Amino acid sequence: MRTPIADDVLARILTAAHHAGSVGFMQPWDFVVIRQRATKRAVKQLFQKTNAQAAMHYEGARATLYRSLKLEGIVEAPINIGVTCSRQRGGRHVLGRSTVRDTDVYSTCCAIQNLWLAARAEGIGVGWVSILDHGTLKQVLGIPRPVKVLAYLCLGYVSAFATQPDLETAGWRARIPVDQLIHYEAWGNTIPADRRNGDAPHEGLHENRGDGK
Amino acid sequence: MRTPIADDVLARILTAAHHAGSVGFMQPWDFVVIRQRATKRAVKQLFQKTNAQAAMHYEGARATLYRSLKLEGIVEAPINIGVTCSRQRGGRHVLGRSTVRDTDVYSTCCAIQNLWLAARAEGIGVGWVSILDHGTLKQVLGIPRPVKVLAYLCLGYVSAFATQPDLETAGWRARIPVDQLIHYEAWGNTIPADRRNGDAPHEGLHENRGDGK
Repeated sequence: MRTPIADDVLARILTAAHHAGSVGFMQPWDFVVIRQRATKRAVKQLFQKTNAQAAMHYEGARATLYRSLKLEGIVEAPINIGVTCSRQRGGRHVLGRSTVRDTDVYSTCCAIQNLWLAARAEGIGVGWVSILDHGTLKQVLGIPRPVKVLAYLCLGYVSAFATQPDLETAGWRARIPVDQLIHYEAWGNTIPADRRNGDAPHEGLHENRGDGK
Repeated sequence: MRTPIADDVLARILTAAHHAGSVGFMQPWDFVVIRQRATKRAVKQLFQKTNAQAAMHYEGARATLYRSLKLEGIVEAPINIGVTCSRQRGGRHVLGRSTVRDTDVYSTCCAIQNLWLAARAEGIGVGWVSILDHGTLKQVLGIPRPVKVLAYLCLGYVSAFATQPDLETAGWRARIPVDQLIHYEAWGNTIPADRRNGDAPHEGLHENRGDGK
């Protein structure tokens, strides 16, 4: 975990992130690369404060399990990266953003997933620490007010990659069968039309229904 | 573009999406797979209405360029996929979501980027159509009110993958040099500490500064 990450490796990872698609080719992301121990320690303090509050949401065995989970590697990881989204980049009218304002945020998340996969290809594990107060984090990293923090990532070489998520292994939550998440033509049709006996294909407009899940 | 996408190929693509990491292992995504022409036509109409409004933001040569751009392939693409985020999945206290509520949205975007790359590996291009009114789109697809639509994707085999984004080729916007987007230790330090002559390393707390960009 503590093995240093070389500059050329980091450059490949950030270049992969920067080559994510973005709505209107807006490229709204920035990357704050943290290597210094003092900065990591300041962020770790933020985590500890917020996590103490988060842990209080659980009781009994669930609380014990929660406290046993490894939820961050801020100080141990050789590199931390804060990923931001500059919401005003590209000016007032960004192509493709007139109806869905948050497409800049969505694009930045796509860049984060590219970063994640590029790191994995280098043998580097990435942890996303979301148990942080982003307002205070922005002060620590000197991030200007209009810029939104999306993610705080810890990067480090790992001895092995697990075959399933840690939270699944720990029994915190189970994976949902993918079939339950695929709908055909309209929400709620989880069996393809060609396998539904005598059921007419679902076409055209539908009313909103139910409560979701 | 119109070549059908086989069920097993689609299954691989959606399985890759479903294996994105998610905060608290929440897996908040669903996928509405659209193959029927009637549904696509209804969505295309939504696009046309919204795009006519969006085009009015541009004037002169920029307006002409805007109208020349290919911004969707809804009807031509054999498969469209609506990707949603169920904000209540996982109950009231999702691990890692106590401070940053939108981590469910961020996780869903990571799944979308996985989908995008998995499709690319199959020789399938993906277009993200954001010029849509999501409220009306939810009616067309029968999506329940509490469920958020994040993306409407068009998938199809393509004859070639371009080496740069279409908007870059068209001269709509240039790629930002990645060096301008990387900050060291704190926002604004775009030169690494070891290359800054006589400049003290930046440590500890910083005030928020400036307007971002």
